[in-house]
Amino acid sequence: MFPTVIKLLPFIEAIGIIAFCVSGFISAQQRKFDAIGVFIIGFVTAFGGGTLRDILLDRRPFYWVQHQNYVIAIFVCSLIAGTIMDFMHRVLPRRAMLIADAMGLGLFTITSTALALDAGMPVFVASMLGVIGAAFGGVIRDILCGDTPLLLTDSRPYASCAFAGAWVYIILQKIEMNDIFSLIISSGLIVVLRLASIRFKWKVPASF
Amino acid sequence: MFPTVIKLLPFIEAIGIIAFCVSGFISAQQRKFDAIGVFIIGFVTAFGGGTLRDILLDRRPFYWVQHQNYVIAIFVCSLIAGTIMDFMHRVLPRRAMLIADAMGLGLFTITSTALALDAGMPVFVASMLGVIGAAFGGVIRDILCGDTPLLLTDSRPYASCAFAGAWVYIILQKIEMNDIFSLIISSGLIVVLRLASIRFKWKVPASF
Amino acid sequence: MFPTVIKLLPFIEAIGIIAFCVSGFISAQQRKFDAIGVFIIGFVTAFGGGTLRDILLDRRPFYWVQHQNYVIAIFVCSLIAGTIMDFMHRVLPRRAMLIADAMGLGLFTITSTALALDAGMPVFVASMLGVIGAAFGGVIRDILCGDTPLLLTDSRPYASCAFAGAWVYIILQKIEMNDIFSLIISSGLIVVLRLASIRFKWKVPASF
Repeated sequence: MFPTVIKLLPFIEAIGIIAFCVSGFISAQQRKFDAIGVFIIGFVTAFGGGTLRDILLDRRPFYWVQHQNYVIAIFVCSLIAGTIMDFMHRVLPRRAMLIADAMGLGLFTITSTALALDAGMPVFVASMLGVIGAAFGGVIRDILCGDTPLLLTDSRPYASCAFAGAWVYIILQKIEMNDIFSLIISSGLIVVLRLASIRFKWKVPASF
Repeated sequence: MFPTVIKLLPFIEAIGIIAFCVSGFISAQQRKFDAIGVFIIGFVTAFGGGTLRDILLDRRPFYWVQHQNYVIAIFVCSLIAGTIMDFMHRVLPRRAMLIADAMGLGLFTITSTALALDAGMPVFVASMLGVIGAAFGGVIRDILCGDTPLLLTDSRPYASCAFAGAWVYIILQKIEMNDIFSLIISSGLIVVLRLASIRFKWKVPASF
Repeated sequence: MFPTVIKLLPFIEAIGIIAFCVSGFISAQQRKFDAIGVFIIGFVTAFGGGTLRDILLDRRPFYWVQHQNYVIAIFVCSLIAGTIMDFMHRVLPRRAMLIADAMGLGLFTITSTALALDAGMPVFVASMLGVIGAAFGGVIRDILCGDTPLLLTDSRPYASCAFAGAWVYIILQKIEMNDIFSLIISSGLIVVLRLASIRFKWKVPASF
């Protein structure tokens, strides 16, 4: 089973990057940015969180430096983002985008948490860096677009799902469960939590 | 006298971190952020300035990575921030918060300036990094909250007090005064300047 | 010819820094920031893009750490920014500022691209870092001032001119043209493109 999952990882990764990038494209197009603006917002939404995580961890090279082809693909797509959005709007149900985004959230939270643990971060800090790596691309997107970050204003759980999954991963690692198995369980949990929270309209409570 | 002061430093540090964090909690609660949002804003207000300073100095580990317990404490407090705010509002006079914030400004400006000098920064740059380390957590807080930074829009002296104190520290170091003595005089001056500026309603003039 | 050009570079650099800094002063004064706010905005507009580029490249020391005198000059100017703006407004035609800004854009794009190539970045990433180094000081300025970045909302080509010039530089380097000659041609092209785009009211199209 494991080798199959490992082969699947790049696909899930691609799905996550596409989902994040598309959410950037949508924000940029709603504000009538030109093609360059669409590229910038798509790019920071896809890679901004991981880049911030790597700056905090003092880690180089960045993912997008090692995978330049993703950046070029986003650039080309940003030139025809209008057509792509129209096409996706017709072909994909809205639910597909939510699932793709949840998969990105799940995978990137756990890979970020794992990178932080590898870098010797204490566990609570590692769980925070997990959330930052997965969810802060959207924060940078919103700041660049002139909005208060959705992560802060929207009380539907997003960072909370990532945080919960990061802790499950940390605990599974502490009890020395196999890496791939830990990854699947904890990122799968994030996807389930996120989709359940949308389905059942859960809300993060305000502070007591 | 010196050993006593050194023993006091962690307490002043804690008072400063609490004051900064609480100012973040207040901002986040005014905007009705959920508990996760309250944590994020409290955290960046307390540690954002020092983190930016350390990124500029290429310095690791960050303070909050070495003192994870502070982060966990802020997390726990953010879950009950409403209760804490109510309690502080009843028990502490508003003046106490202003004094605590001024103590944070004073101490963090001088420790940041000292770190920058230790890293071999030229003196003017060191004084800027002193101000950044103490005052830019609030700038990041305001940007995340969707406001124009108070540091820029409010003409009551804040960065200016920090800047003046940083220069006194630099001069005391140049004349080779004892480290602890320099720290006390210059951070004390910042506290006095800041409180006097509030008391007497000083304003930073516009550019001529 | 080459030695003459090399001698001219520091002057063009100074013209670019002044132009960027002045655009920051103007933004800050329109918002009635005090002298400290004017300094902060002038400084980040002049050096923010290059600093972000250096953080991404993990490159130290920053330009403004090595050239502290520029920072001190900006500080002194920010105290009398009102007078300076009035004077420039009377003496310099608006066109002079546009040309100075275009020269800054041209020079800093190519020097940033060259630094990125030297650091071993792949070519597309190098062209992006070229644009970031030259154009993102203005983005940080706008975010601090509470505006949506002009780079994103204004469809007159700015980043696009920089991007085109960066690619010409990369191609000239691939065919092993002399460094200085490459620099002159590609940064000159950016200046011409930028001024032509203003003169002929070109617009970056929206995504298709």
